[in-house]
Amino acid sequence: MIDPVDLTARLVQCPSITPEEGGALVLLQDLLTEAGFTCTRVDRGVTSNLFARWGNKGHARSFGFNGHTDVVPLGNPDDWTMAPFGAEIKDGFMYGRGTTDMKSGVAAFAAAAVDFVKDTPPDGAIILTITGDEEGDATDGTVALLDWMDAEGERMSHCLVGEPTCPNHMGEMMKIGRRGSLTAWFTVTGVQGHSAYPHRANNPLNAMARLMNGLASHELDQGTDHFDASTLAVVTIDTGNPATNVIPAKSKATVNIRFNDLHTGQSLSDWLRSEAAAIDEVFGTKTDVTIKISGESFLTPPGELSGMVSRAVQHQTNVTPELSTSGGTSDARFVKNHCPVVEFGLVGKTMHQVDERVEVAQIHQLKAIYTQILRDYFA
Amino acid sequence: MIDPVDLTARLVQCPSITPEEGGALVLLQDLLTEAGFTCTRVDRGVTSNLFARWGNKGHARSFGFNGHTDVVPLGNPDDWTMAPFGAEIKDGFMYGRGTTDMKSGVAAFAAAAVDFVKDTPPDGAIILTITGDEEGDATDGTVALLDWMDAEGERMSHCLVGEPTCPNHMGEMMKIGRRGSLTAWFTVTGVQGHSAYPHRANNPLNAMARLMNGLASHELDQGTDHFDASTLAVVTIDTGNPATNVIPAKSKATVNIRFNDLHTGQSLSDWLRSEAAAIDEVFGTKTDVTIKISGESFLTPPGELSGMVSRAVQHQTNVTPELSTSGGTSDARFVKNHCPVVEFGLVGKTMHQVDERVEVAQIHQLKAIYTQILRDYFA
Repeated sequence: MIDPVDLTARLVQCPSITPEEGGALVLLQDLLTEAGFTCTRVDRGVTSNLFARWGNKGHARSFGFNGHTDVVPLGNPDDWTMAPFGAEIKDGFMYGRGTTDMKSGVAAFAAAAVDFVKDTPPDGAIILTITGDEEGDATDGTVALLDWMDAEGERMSHCLVGEPTCPNHMGEMMKIGRRGSLTAWFTVTGVQGHSAYPHRANNPLNAMARLMNGLASHELDQGTDHFDASTLAVVTIDTGNPATNVIPAKSKATVNIRFNDLHTGQSLSDWLRSEAAAIDEVFGTKTDVTIKISGESFLTPPGELSGMVSRAVQHQTNVTPELSTSGGTSDARFVKNHCPVVEFGLVGKTMHQVDERVEVAQIHQLKAIYTQILRDYFA
Repeated sequence: MIDPVDLTARLVQCPSITPEEGGALVLLQDLLTEAGFTCTRVDRGVTSNLFARWGNKGHARSFGFNGHTDVVPLGNPDDWTMAPFGAEIKDGFMYGRGTTDMKSGVAAFAAAAVDFVKDTPPDGAIILTITGDEEGDATDGTVALLDWMDAEGERMSHCLVGEPTCPNHMGEMMKIGRRGSLTAWFTVTGVQGHSAYPHRANNPLNAMARLMNGLASHELDQGTDHFDASTLAVVTIDTGNPATNVIPAKSKATVNIRFNDLHTGQSLSDWLRSEAAAIDEVFGTKTDVTIKISGESFLTPPGELSGMVSRAVQHQTNVTPELSTSGGTSDARFVKNHCPVVEFGLVGKTMHQVDERVEVAQIHQLKAIYTQILRDYFA
């Protein structure tokens, strides 16, 4: 029996700040190889990634776990009251960078998988994809693993991402999708002039205020069955004109949209550009719009996978998890192109903070939940 | 006969960048004393000012000229093609800082006054107020002279400010008033948050965009008999939030209003504050408004004074000057509290620029115009 708390501690002691591997993937590779998993390091650029499979390649029943061993930087090390890579336990909590996000998750699913295949070897495969680039640009991590799997004919039929998903209490939330995210940068160009003679200038701020007021007032939708309403936030407007007697030539603004399945990055880009063009038409300005789509919205509709996770969580914690699509981005946005994916993990409250910590009992619970999911899946 | 071109050159050679006296007022004081004027230096703080009167104190017919000998800095001296304090003449133009703004004007009215009292001593008084703080804060210049005059019982019955008033051609414009000017600084405070959850934050930019769009769209008026329409310019909106996933707590904006005689600084301040309060009511934000009134609007209605100036200009240049209230601020805004005031001077095109220059012929014309005004006034 693998002790997931001990395994978490050993992983936390590896200083794997993105993109450093820090020994974490080597440790897991040794453990999994020993347990009969076929392991392949799928490194790309400076990023280290680990692919591990137990059972036959291409089996129709191939359950996947996805996670990462890289962690965010410490912030100011002096602000920590416990050693950031110490994995020390105090009052029922283990402290250290990555204890929550997400070395405990990786330890829990690795321990569950190893013990499960030893105790009750299933008719199927278990695949672990563990990346070292989730906290960075995420371009050479799970994406590289999935590319490699496609090329090699490796397939998961379902996948669970072990990120922390519970806001406050163990078991209260799983994620079945995410809103998409898009950022748009606007530069409105008018004609500079003297503030005493606005008619000889063309104040870009008139157009800017109208445009941003229009965007901010617009209701994108009222939400859907599984998604909150899409939101638009004007996050900054900047001009940098120190002279009160000068009308500036340019002004810039940034808008961030989180969107549900009623929109796509493309439909919103089209909308933003047409709003800007309409304003330019009225004001005679020239508005430049640059758009970055960080991710499209996606949903794994409630069904077999979420049902299994739900039952396991309920059984182990007596809590029925909410099926949520809230929150920031995760590597599930890449996995969803490969197979149905949900996310479930422990309480994420202290992630990215100083004195990041995990309740030790939750690591045991998480291993038990993952084990029950495997049992259910291969039953 | 005083040659106003020679006098301009001697004044330009005095390096009187605000607040330096540079020898300019001393030169004028010597000249005027010699011609029978009673001269008093009315210095305040670091500022030098000159009061000069010919004739009896308190005479009911006391014509005033107002001007300044201080000049703005050179900018980059290397950008000048002529010596900035050289007063060199080339192709009919005299070059140097202050040639236009406004040592030629001071030279023209000083020369006119000196020759006039010698040739045809009038039944009345001529008062010259010349300041060294027009280009600076203007707090210790004409204001100090007028304070001193009040205290001493000195009075002008009418006054002409000799600032350049013609945009392109000699004689085309005189000023009979000015719009007022007001600047307002807005700080909208909301509640910071994550851009994915705008409902948990209160984005100050929503209120800011609505407020600025409202102000910029508002028509203050359509102008009056002697004034252009009042104008409002949003000159900057700044937030300084670099993070696209963060809703900022604050945003700032600055608005500049140039207003005619349908408004006062107070009425506009009240309006701006009530607009901000209405927005706060809708958005639950807190908007701080700081207002500075740089000057109220004023008008010397067309009449005796403007009529005399008009006739003199027309006679000497064959051009009928427009009676305008356009343009930036001048010391006429102080003089108007003392007596009726108008402004007339030569072409101001190159003022404050590198290679500032004046057409030599215009200096002669200006002296002739000022002389004719005196003749008319004391006829």
